[in-house]
Amino acid sequence: MSLDGYIADSNESLDFLSLVEQEGQDYGYTEFIKSVDTIIIGRKTYDKVISMGYEYPHTDKDVYIITRTERPAIGTYKYYTGNLQDLVYSIKSKPGKDIYCDGGAEIVTELLKNHLVDELIISVIPILLGNGIRLFKDGQTLQKLNLVNSKQFDRGLVQLHYKCVTN
Amino acid sequence: MSLDGYIADSNESLDFLSLVEQEGQDYGYTEFIKSVDTIIIGRKTYDKVISMGYEYPHTDKDVYIITRTERPAIGTYKYYTGNLQDLVYSIKSKPGKDIYCDGGAEIVTELLKNHLVDELIISVIPILLGNGIRLFKDGQTLQKLNLVNSKQFDRGLVQLHYKCVTN
Repeated sequence: MSLDGYIADSNESLDFLSLVEQEGQDYGYTEFIKSVDTIIIGRKTYDKVISMGYEYPHTDKDVYIITRTERPAIGTYKYYTGNLQDLVYSIKSKPGKDIYCDGGAEIVTELLKNHLVDELIISVIPILLGNGIRLFKDGQTLQKLNLVNSKQFDRGLVQLHYKCVTN
Repeated sequence: MSLDGYIADSNESLDFLSLVEQEGQDYGYTEFIKSVDTIIIGRKTYDKVISMGYEYPHTDKDVYIITRTERPAIGTYKYYTGNLQDLVYSIKSKPGKDIYCDGGAEIVTELLKNHLVDELIISVIPILLGNGIRLFKDGQTLQKLNLVNSKQFDRGLVQLHYKCVTN
């Protein structure tokens, strides 16, 4: 997110991320994604990635695209219209690696509300966008955090890694 | 601010700051305040500090309390009802140390809008408050930043130090 808390600007653009693009620097993504076998992604975020001309390259993982409208699966990617809590409980009840919630402020909000987030990794981009789509909206639940680590990178990105404190 | 961007909770309380209180740890404040000879503080923030039973201990500095209502000075502290830009230009035109804008989302917003902020030091407290008073409100001006430094502390506070990029 930007320092002022936006994950997209007021045109829903992610252009500000180019400020921290650097050849050979993936900000730990390759290592991180190895620890994951399931991805939950909001339908809007998924469509955004595809509309930007990217493939969604996680064919080796269980991918759930969260939506309100039933749609046929895309290869191994399933659209999921059910209860998000039930989905997470069900995945967590089986042995496996971590679940990665790949963006979507609505999904993150819903998961935080139900205390279903174990860890947060927030990359702070060195810009005040001034306006846009917030990751953390008003009117949410209090959640204490423990800092695991913070890391700063050449282009001024600071990555903050927290564990959610269970009460 | 909290990780979700609040500088006070929905009751205007600063109690969440106690999460990072630690004996002998002032997060660089003593060193920082030596670099400053002028303080600009919002009237609400000033009253908040006083209402919490603290003294405002900067009698060795020029203190301007920004307000809409004329009031008599308190010792060396002057109430200032004029134009904020004019005040900053006037102070900057004279030789001296740095100016510290001591909180007040409204003041920070106004200064950022007029590109009168040179540096930002943001301490991120390890909590999602969920609601409250935001430091960075919607509908502001875009401002690119250069990261000077980030520093993490024992209690999980991460201090982010930026310089504003002038266009």
